[in-house]
Amino acid sequence: MKLSTLFSPVLKQDPSDAVLVSHRLMLRSGMIVQSATGLYSWLPMGVRVLENIINIVAQKHDEFGCSRMITPILQSAELWKESGRYEDYGKEMLRVKDRHDRDFLFGPTNEEVMTDVARKFIQSYKQLPQVFYQITWKFRDEMRPRFGIMRAREFLMKDAYSFDLDFESAQNTYKNIYHCYLSIFDALGVDALPVRADSGAIGGNLSHEFHVKAEHGESTLYYDSKIDDIKSCDKNFDLMESMYAVADEKHIEETCPLTSDQITVTKGIEIGHIFYFGTKYSESMDFKIAGKDGQSFYPEMGSYGIGMSRLVAAMIEANHDENGIIWPEAVAPFLFILMPLDMNSPETISECEKIYQSLKAQGYSVLIDDRDERPGVKFSYADLIGIPHQIILGKDFKENKLLEYKNRKTGEREKIAISSVDEWLKSKITSSCR
Amino acid sequence: MKLSTLFSPVLKQDPSDAVLVSHRLMLRSGMIVQSATGLYSWLPMGVRVLENIINIVAQKHDEFGCSRMITPILQSAELWKESGRYEDYGKEMLRVKDRHDRDFLFGPTNEEVMTDVARKFIQSYKQLPQVFYQITWKFRDEMRPRFGIMRAREFLMKDAYSFDLDFESAQNTYKNIYHCYLSIFDALGVDALPVRADSGAIGGNLSHEFHVKAEHGESTLYYDSKIDDIKSCDKNFDLMESMYAVADEKHIEETCPLTSDQITVTKGIEIGHIFYFGTKYSESMDFKIAGKDGQSFYPEMGSYGIGMSRLVAAMIEANHDENGIIWPEAVAPFLFILMPLDMNSPETISECEKIYQSLKAQGYSVLIDDRDERPGVKFSYADLIGIPHQIILGKDFKENKLLEYKNRKTGEREKIAISSVDEWLKSKITSSCR
Repeated sequence: MKLSTLFSPVLKQDPSDAVLVSHRLMLRSGMIVQSATGLYSWLPMGVRVLENIINIVAQKHDEFGCSRMITPILQSAELWKESGRYEDYGKEMLRVKDRHDRDFLFGPTNEEVMTDVARKFIQSYKQLPQVFYQITWKFRDEMRPRFGIMRAREFLMKDAYSFDLDFESAQNTYKNIYHCYLSIFDALGVDALPVRADSGAIGGNLSHEFHVKAEHGESTLYYDSKIDDIKSCDKNFDLMESMYAVADEKHIEETCPLTSDQITVTKGIEIGHIFYFGTKYSESMDFKIAGKDGQSFYPEMGSYGIGMSRLVAAMIEANHDENGIIWPEAVAPFLFILMPLDMNSPETISECEKIYQSLKAQGYSVLIDDRDERPGVKFSYADLIGIPHQIILGKDFKENKLLEYKNRKTGEREKIAISSVDEWLKSKITSSCR
Repeated sequence: MKLSTLFSPVLKQDPSDAVLVSHRLMLRSGMIVQSATGLYSWLPMGVRVLENIINIVAQKHDEFGCSRMITPILQSAELWKESGRYEDYGKEMLRVKDRHDRDFLFGPTNEEVMTDVARKFIQSYKQLPQVFYQITWKFRDEMRPRFGIMRAREFLMKDAYSFDLDFESAQNTYKNIYHCYLSIFDALGVDALPVRADSGAIGGNLSHEFHVKAEHGESTLYYDSKIDDIKSCDKNFDLMESMYAVADEKHIEETCPLTSDQITVTKGIEIGHIFYFGTKYSESMDFKIAGKDGQSFYPEMGSYGIGMSRLVAAMIEANHDENGIIWPEAVAPFLFILMPLDMNSPETISECEKIYQSLKAQGYSVLIDDRDERPGVKFSYADLIGIPHQIILGKDFKENKLLEYKNRKTGEREKIAISSVDEWLKSKITSSCR
C-alpha cells in the first residue's frame, strides 16, 4: 500500500493528557483518536493491528473446536432479570429504553444471551460439549475511564462460553481453552503469564488470569522465578498448577511456599481471564437438558475472555523504545516498509515498485513511504509506527545499487545487493506470519 | 472442519412466522436465531458467510484507496446537535444517557463522527481527497422490524465518507466508489443493478442505489431491457448514465424515453446507496481547511453505504431452490463438503481425510459431515446450507473406488476416480476465490 493513499496522521508532539506510554504512542502514531470520554475511533494503522489480532484469535478458537457467533450488542433486559443480574450490575451497565419503552442494555458481557442461544438448540447431552465464542464491542460505563483504550468505556472483547455434561468434562474444556490461550499469545508474540485468580463464590482452582508483565500494570503478580525460564507455549496447565503463580488477591504471604529469593513480584496487565462457574446460569435460566440416564440436568458452564483492544495497548507497553512502537511480526500493521529517499529518481521508484510487487506476490504486507519528505521524517515515521523490517533506497542505492536494511527490534543494519534481496528479506522473517 | 465439532443446528420444519424465503432459509439452515424483536444472533454458518463478505468489501475498499476506520458505536449527542440532526432524526434513533446523565446515541449512521475525525486531522487541501470507511453494527429503532435481518433493528453496514477539494474532484471520487461497488458485487457473485435515485435537496445526478432483483423486493425498478445483457462489472458509470435505469421515486412515465416493450419493470432489494451531499456537514460542523489560494473552504462530501447483513438475505432471495440456499463460491461458508456415508468404514474415513487435507493445503475451506447419520440426512443438510461443491464417498467408493460429485447450483453429477480427484476438483471452481 502507498502511504500517500492511506490516512495515517502522526502527531509531532506528545499529547499532554496521556499518562501511559501505550496511550501516548497510540495517539502519536495515529492508531486512535478520542471521540468522547472513554470512546475512541480507530484509524487505519490501529485497525490493521486489531484485525491481525482478531484473525489470529478467531483462527485459534476454531482450531480448538469453538464455534463462532455474533450476538446483538443491544440485549433484552428480560434475560438479565432471569439470571438476577439486571438489578445487581450497577451503574457500569448502560441501560436503554427502546421506542416502545421496553428495557434493553448495551451488553457488558454475554452469559445470559449465550445461555439463551444454547437452550434454544441443545436438548440432549449428546450435543455437548460446546464452546461458543464471539469477538464484539462491549460497553461498561466506567466511573473514571482512563489510560486510553486500556480502560475505555467501549472495548473489543473476545468472550467464550462453555457447556458441559459434568465437572470432569467441564474441567477438560477449561484446560483446552487454557491451552488455546497459550497458543494464541504465542502466535501473537506476547509473553503471557497465567496466574491463579480468585474464583469467587464457586471456589476450587478453576479461575486464571493471563497477564503481560509491564511496569505500569494495574495488577501485582507473585510467581516462582523459575517460570521465567519456561517458553511461552510450554506453560501448560499441569506444569503451571505445580508451581506458584498467583494474582494479588490470591497471594497470602504466610502460606506462600517460596522464599524471598525464589519469588518474583511484578506488575502485570490483565489480558485474559478464564473462569469456571458451574450451573449458576443454566440453573437460574432453567436451561435443562436430557442426560444419559434420561434424567435432565443443568449443564456446567465456564466463561473465557480476552480483552482484544486492551491487548493492543498491553503489547505496546511491553514492546516500545524512545522512538516508538516495536510490533511483533504477527500483529504489525505492515511487515515491511520501503523508503525511497529520492522521489524524483525514476530508478529508485522503479526498483522500489519491483521489490513491492515481489513481496506482495509472496503474501507479505508492505507499505511504501512515497511521500516527498526528508529522509529523517521517513525514518522517524517508520520507527514510530513500529514496522519490523525497514528497507531504505538512498544514496547507496544510487551509487552502488545497495539497499539498506534496518531491523526495528534489534536495530541491526545491513547493506544488501539488489540481486539477492528477495531471498535475503525472507530470511529476516522470524515467524511464519504474513 | 468437522461438522461434529461445529455448532450447526438446522430446523426440520419451516418456521411459521417467517414470510420471506431468505428469513425462512436463514433460520432453517442455522445461520441466525432471534434474540429479541428485530435483534438476531448469528450462528457459525451465518458468521462465516458474513465474514467472507466483510473481507471482500474491505479488500476492495482498500484497493480503491479508501482508509479503514472503526468509530465508536456510542456517539456523543453533541456532534449531532452541531449538525442539527439530533432533534430531526426522530424515534428511529436510540437515545441513551450515561451515568453522568450526558446524552449519547447508538449510531444509526456516521456523517457527524467521521466529519469530526476529519476536522481533527485535515488542515490543508493537500491532504485531500480522502475516503474513510468502516464496517460496523448500527441501530435503527424500526417501528415494525420484519423480514428477519432484511429489516432488523441492529444491522451490519459498511459506510464510507468522502472529503474533496471541489465538485469536480468530488465527482471523480463518487465515480471511483461507484466502480468500487461494481467490483465488489462482481467479486461476491451478486448481479447488482445501479439505478438513479432521489438526490433530495441537493439535486443533480449524484445519487444511486444498487439493487438485487428479487420477487419480494421492497423497491420497484424501471430500466432499459438492454441492460440485462451487460455483464455485471461492465455497468460503468458513464455507460449506465447514458441509459434509463431508475428507482421508483425517479420514474416519471410521461418523460420516460422508453416504450413499454423497451422497458423492464422489476422488484429489487436495495443493497447499496451512494450519495453526494456537498458541504452540508462540513459547513454545519464548521470543518474548514486551507485552500490552494490560501483561502479556507468547506470540503465537498459524499456518503456511501452497503447493507452488509441485508446483503446476506438479498443473496439468498436471488439464489435458492426448494432444497435450500445456493451460495456463490465467494461467500459460501465452505467451498466443499465431504460426505462419507459409512462412518464405520476405515477406508472411507481415511480417504476422506486425505481429500480433506489436500484441499485444505491448497487453501480451500472444507467441511466434513462426520456425523453418524443416514445418507438422506447428509444430502439434504448439504443442500440446505448451500455448499457449492459436494463430494460423496458412498457405495461407489467402496465397490469401485469412485467418488460422486454434485454441483449444488447446476445439479450436475459426475463420478470421479480417486487418482485424479485433486485436479478434477480444482477444475470445478469457477471463481478465483478460496
